[in-house]
Amino acid sequence: MSQPFILHGAIRSSAAWRVRIVLHLKGLAFEERFLDLNRGEHQRMEYRKVNPQMLVPALVAPDGTLVTQSMAIMEYLDETAPGPRVLPADAAGRARVRSLSQMVACDIHPINNLRVRNHVLDLMAHDSGAQSAWMDKWLSAGLDALEARLAEDRETGAFCHGKSPTMADACLVPQLNNARATNRELSDWPNILRIAASCEKLAAFAETSPAKLQGRESGR
Amino acid sequence: MSQPFILHGAIRSSAAWRVRIVLHLKGLAFEERFLDLNRGEHQRMEYRKVNPQMLVPALVAPDGTLVTQSMAIMEYLDETAPGPRVLPADAAGRARVRSLSQMVACDIHPINNLRVRNHVLDLMAHDSGAQSAWMDKWLSAGLDALEARLAEDRETGAFCHGKSPTMADACLVPQLNNARATNRELSDWPNILRIAASCEKLAAFAETSPAKLQGRESGR
Repeated sequence: MSQPFILHGAIRSSAAWRVRIVLHLKGLAFEERFLDLNRGEHQRMEYRKVNPQMLVPALVAPDGTLVTQSMAIMEYLDETAPGPRVLPADAAGRARVRSLSQMVACDIHPINNLRVRNHVLDLMAHDSGAQSAWMDKWLSAGLDALEARLAEDRETGAFCHGKSPTMADACLVPQLNNARATNRELSDWPNILRIAASCEKLAAFAETSPAKLQGRESGR
Repeated sequence: MSQPFILHGAIRSSAAWRVRIVLHLKGLAFEERFLDLNRGEHQRMEYRKVNPQMLVPALVAPDGTLVTQSMAIMEYLDETAPGPRVLPADAAGRARVRSLSQMVACDIHPINNLRVRNHVLDLMAHDSGAQSAWMDKWLSAGLDALEARLAEDRETGAFCHGKSPTMADACLVPQLNNARATNRELSDWPNILRIAASCEKLAAFAETSPAKLQGRESGR
């Protein structure tokens, strides 16, 4: 049996979850090292030796190649590992899937992730209502744009792009999971909910979710 | 002569500049339609018909294919158009270039772009000092991480990756240009400055810069 991939991730990191989904969809053996970001485990010397950037996710391939940044990791897996492709075969399709992925990974997630969220809380004198309003604003703008596009494009199917899951679904489902955690009304996004339901029937999404992995941080 | 690419962009959008650089590097004929984002030209019905997302950049290929999101556009051009490649030939190299690109396009730019910057100004009761501090915080964190990585990786050359410009350089130079506009001391980032100097000797970077294009917004 070949060596597994090693994923340095975190249970509640939606970017790490994207990569878990793609590893699972492709049926690749992997071990995940769960860092507890709230305890600063990603900033300890032990992890710095693995990834000097001290960020998750980071993937170590069986040949020792280190890849960082979730979208670069998913592309790398699609180019080098066996299993179903998470990017379409045609250039226009790949462009669409990358664009949908980036609508989540560039336009929503970075503005609402842990470090920015915490900084907004500091700036707003620990007013948690202001923090929630911040998060809702960017989440809503981003998911509204994604919903409009999924509704309009003829390439939208049971999944973001056609009949099988792609990188775009691996970006969407973890972001929607964060939206659910806010108690916000989600019914403005029927296409997103329909696609998420298709995804959640698959083990690659269900078995890799934070809810399933709770309590597995390292050092516990 | 074949039809040109049409780029819907904006002079001061660093994401649109990334795409201009890649079009120019590849020697592709293109026309740019400059929208004035401050006047809300991207939200008018006329542009909505082109791109229902009302965002720039958006590229229309000679065959009519519309591609949005700057990284998806650069990948699409690299896959479909002639000219020098902006992604390396090997999978590990492509992963590194994508990762460096995303360190700018996901970890810096979205937190400091026009809509977030304006919203921070509103939240902070129009305290422009607080807005500058916000921008400096994320810019510094992002460029510090990028500098460390460029300093450590043996693949770093005259450009971010080896001896010729890639998508990573097309992301870096526009972001550094924004940093210059802040009057911040840049000497903490010697590798970034060295690489930017290599880039700025090339017409693809120099001729496409906001400084060169000033005053060319549509409707003026």
